[in-house]
Amino acid sequence: MTSFSESMAVRVYYEDTDHGGVVYYANYLKFMERGRSEFLRAIGMELDAIESEFGVLFAVTEAQIRYQKPARFNDLLDVESSLTEMRGARLAFSQSIYRQPSHKQVCAATIRLACIKRDGGVCRIPAPLIGKLQNHLNKEHV
Amino acid sequence: MTSFSESMAVRVYYEDTDHGGVVYYANYLKFMERGRSEFLRAIGMELDAIESEFGVLFAVTEAQIRYQKPARFNDLLDVESSLTEMRGARLAFSQSIYRQPSHKQVCAATIRLACIKRDGGVCRIPAPLIGKLQNHLNKEHV
Amino acid sequence: MTSFSESMAVRVYYEDTDHGGVVYYANYLKFMERGRSEFLRAIGMELDAIESEFGVLFAVTEAQIRYQKPARFNDLLDVESSLTEMRGARLAFSQSIYRQPSHKQVCAATIRLACIKRDGGVCRIPAPLIGKLQNHLNKEHV
Amino acid sequence: MTSFSESMAVRVYYEDTDHGGVVYYANYLKFMERGRSEFLRAIGMELDAIESEFGVLFAVTEAQIRYQKPARFNDLLDVESSLTEMRGARLAFSQSIYRQPSHKQVCAATIRLACIKRDGGVCRIPAPLIGKLQNHLNKEHV
Repeated sequence: MTSFSESMAVRVYYEDTDHGGVVYYANYLKFMERGRSEFLRAIGMELDAIESEFGVLFAVTEAQIRYQKPARFNDLLDVESSLTEMRGARLAFSQSIYRQPSHKQVCAATIRLACIKRDGGVCRIPAPLIGKLQNHLNKEHV
Repeated sequence: MTSFSESMAVRVYYEDTDHGGVVYYANYLKFMERGRSEFLRAIGMELDAIESEFGVLFAVTEAQIRYQKPARFNDLLDVESSLTEMRGARLAFSQSIYRQPSHKQVCAATIRLACIKRDGGVCRIPAPLIGKLQNHLNKEHV
Repeated sequence: MTSFSESMAVRVYYEDTDHGGVVYYANYLKFMERGRSEFLRAIGMELDAIESEFGVLFAVTEAQIRYQKPARFNDLLDVESSLTEMRGARLAFSQSIYRQPSHKQVCAATIRLACIKRDGGVCRIPAPLIGKLQNHLNKEHV
Repeated sequence: MTSFSESMAVRVYYEDTDHGGVVYYANYLKFMERGRSEFLRAIGMELDAIESEFGVLFAVTEAQIRYQKPARFNDLLDVESSLTEMRGARLAFSQSIYRQPSHKQVCAATIRLACIKRDGGVCRIPAPLIGKLQNHLNKEHV
């Protein structure tokens, strides 16, 4: 499974747009996070269960996003998410948003995360999660 | 001090607007909450200190908001907040937002809150806070 | 069809929550608006098409919302929307949000809207839309 | 004036935080945009006036943000913004957010923008604006 990626549909509502008539630039990062949450759910990881079971969460340490075409009110978007790196406490996702049905690329991002404890300290990803993540690492992207 | 009210300036940024060219309707409730936070700070109540000292926070139980004139990108607004009721665990605020410099009314709201513990249970407002609130109750509004 | 209502699933993501551990109070109004948009789509009204065809949009004139139980991160919610009034330029919706699978009520709202032109002036709802709305008016709610 | 930068105070309210107890990662980009708006205002450029006078606005084409320390509810932050590049239709800002009073760095970003017309097409920055921007270009940062 060297090319696993998860696709999620997102509808653009009024709340997402700004007075320029397009989706507000920071809101694409919300869509990206919904996509990562659904990626993890798809491979059997529910973030609230992970938090209560292992006492850890994943915090974004770096986000890089390139905006190509604006999305507009009522557009139907597709958020595609791939896990491209995993090392110790670190994960990286490659994510792209496309407008449907044309599949034109709206934006693309690389998001880096660290596994942290509730007190904010960085810690290794819990062992029971490593296997699931490893199996869905997208080696084509690396 | 029967007519204490607290006034707070809010600038409208891109993040606040929607593709209709005006402030998105739910975002006025964000401005209202900033106004309540500044009201409480002005009478000597810092919400993070209250939470760590007394283990309580104030949760909104009802919001009623009437929209009169839209606010637009780059407008300078004035959020006016008055405490109009206090009983047991309950508070109510009367709040209005005006556009500057015309002072035209943008919207007005009544917001009801309950004092709750971290587990969500309703509890009496801690005694040391009651005096501060009582002194700034706006009796003209009731 | 005297009891038409539209149900929409909403997942709670990080973006929706606040540091109290629950959904931020203004964000329920975002969920309510998604619900109204899906209600209108279900009866054949796409808001972007209406705006370009008739030059009108629906602006919220009043929102009243009562909060019962908080929703939390990763909850799956159900937003139920009914059209309860239509007169001239005015619409009213009755909307409720439930947590799934328990179907416990999280909050309930009455939202009033006016049909407006792009310049902000109130205008009658365009005739071709009245029939669609009339057919889906929930007379049990009135 | 080779090192002009603009500093803006931002208070963290409930709306900005998430259930992890810290500011939600996308919301720092809102603070960054408030900072750029205030930078431009400080050098005599009001974005609404520019839009109505020249028919242009500035759209973000790339954002890169590195998160160092989380900001929390009720923190007072300082957003520092410098203009580091200007060429044709393009601008770049270097921005940092610090927690006060410690001045610990919360996050840092590079934001690239393009001047666009209302139809979305890229266009040269209007000549009357170039002088103002040129005078406040931070050459130390380049």
